[in-house]
Amino acid sequence: MASHIVSSYEDELKYIVRRISEMGGQAERMLQQSVTALVKGDASIAQSVIADDVILDASQREVDEKAIMTIGKRQPIALDLREIVGAIRISNDLERIGDLAKNISKRVLAVHRHPQPGQLVRGIEHLSELAIDQLKDVLDAYATRDHERAAAIRESDEQIDAVYTSIFRELLTYMMEDPRNITSCTHLLFSAKNIERIGDHATNIAETVFYIRTGQEMVTERSKGDRSASVTQKSVEQAVEAASE
Amino acid sequence: MASHIVSSYEDELKYIVRRISEMGGQAERMLQQSVTALVKGDASIAQSVIADDVILDASQREVDEKAIMTIGKRQPIALDLREIVGAIRISNDLERIGDLAKNISKRVLAVHRHPQPGQLVRGIEHLSELAIDQLKDVLDAYATRDHERAAAIRESDEQIDAVYTSIFRELLTYMMEDPRNITSCTHLLFSAKNIERIGDHATNIAETVFYIRTGQEMVTERSKGDRSASVTQKSVEQAVEAASE
Repeated sequence: MASHIVSSYEDELKYIVRRISEMGGQAERMLQQSVTALVKGDASIAQSVIADDVILDASQREVDEKAIMTIGKRQPIALDLREIVGAIRISNDLERIGDLAKNISKRVLAVHRHPQPGQLVRGIEHLSELAIDQLKDVLDAYATRDHERAAAIRESDEQIDAVYTSIFRELLTYMMEDPRNITSCTHLLFSAKNIERIGDHATNIAETVFYIRTGQEMVTERSKGDRSASVTQKSVEQAVEAASE
Repeated sequence: MASHIVSSYEDELKYIVRRISEMGGQAERMLQQSVTALVKGDASIAQSVIADDVILDASQREVDEKAIMTIGKRQPIALDLREIVGAIRISNDLERIGDLAKNISKRVLAVHRHPQPGQLVRGIEHLSELAIDQLKDVLDAYATRDHERAAAIRESDEQIDAVYTSIFRELLTYMMEDPRNITSCTHLLFSAKNIERIGDHATNIAETVFYIRTGQEMVTERSKGDRSASVTQKSVEQAVEAASE
């Protein structure tokens, strides 16, 4: 194979990888800002996140097209092919992270006039810090193609799920204590769920890094730490009772 | 190009398209059964949906691998390349529809002992019928590569969003009326949201069908009929007042 062809492939791959790193930075900022907007009730920050999502969507379409063209033109195999396929998957996850941050920002506009209980806000801030750390970590693992680090990140997602489940219970408790909290708590509930799902997408990215490096899928069903889907009326009533004792 | 190569490409594409049609049928059944499980409070149907999701995940990985191998081996261009890229996108959306149906089923196990208000259940059944019809429609549009039908489906998603927003308001009203409804209503809220998101994935599939046929992306931001993210405390309180008059 002529060396100029090899170098073209490498140039194309480098470009795609750089675009993904930019997308990663943008998704991280959008998450950070959407939570700041939620916590401060700042509608103008929320609006800027909503506007930024259009750019992230366009980046994803561009990476998609470039990657597909590269596969068609260069016929990469083995590691080279996995690099390109991995780029498509990762840009897809980053685009969805942006969507989730945008959705949190939309909720800010509905709740920002209602003061939130401090403890709840701290819970959501804590959850978002865990998600941002996880996203940073996984983007570093991608940048260094460190599949062992990627595998470790997947396990740390369980912590996010556990914190989310505890916020879920707490939000239900607040709603039961005072029905006037219900609307804003519902928006906080969806916001917390969005952050938990961002953790899932970061985990997907970790799995993709593992696949790029090893050619193997991490197929084993991960133990889901998010137990909120099985939180029952009784367990919440007990929590409410315990809280009012 | 030798005809046996052409025929191999066509065989591979046919196989992928058949697998996607099977995945579509399975996703449709999973949605149908998860809502039946929710409405009837039937834990064993819910368990079978949860088990089926493993099969759908495996199908998606298989379609992904086959499609990538086909691109690498056959270097398709133009329509042929879009067919394969479209297959990857559609199997991804179908896999996510399965995930959302699984999540509804998990919630059944938490709420099935609590009788749900009849009106709410009917609302969710209605929402799921709209989503199932939309999914059937979009799978037909894919089978016939009918991009005009696909474009029309995208607009019908607004109806799903509008019904979801009305269920969202209604659920908040029930919670405010009686705090004992809060836990089960929260699970119903997430279930309704999952169905609304299934509508979004069906819409993505419609966009992919349009892309396969025309080579164009439908990039215009669709008007979002889901207004639930902006439902405020005041508007719900007014609804509660109106309901108790």
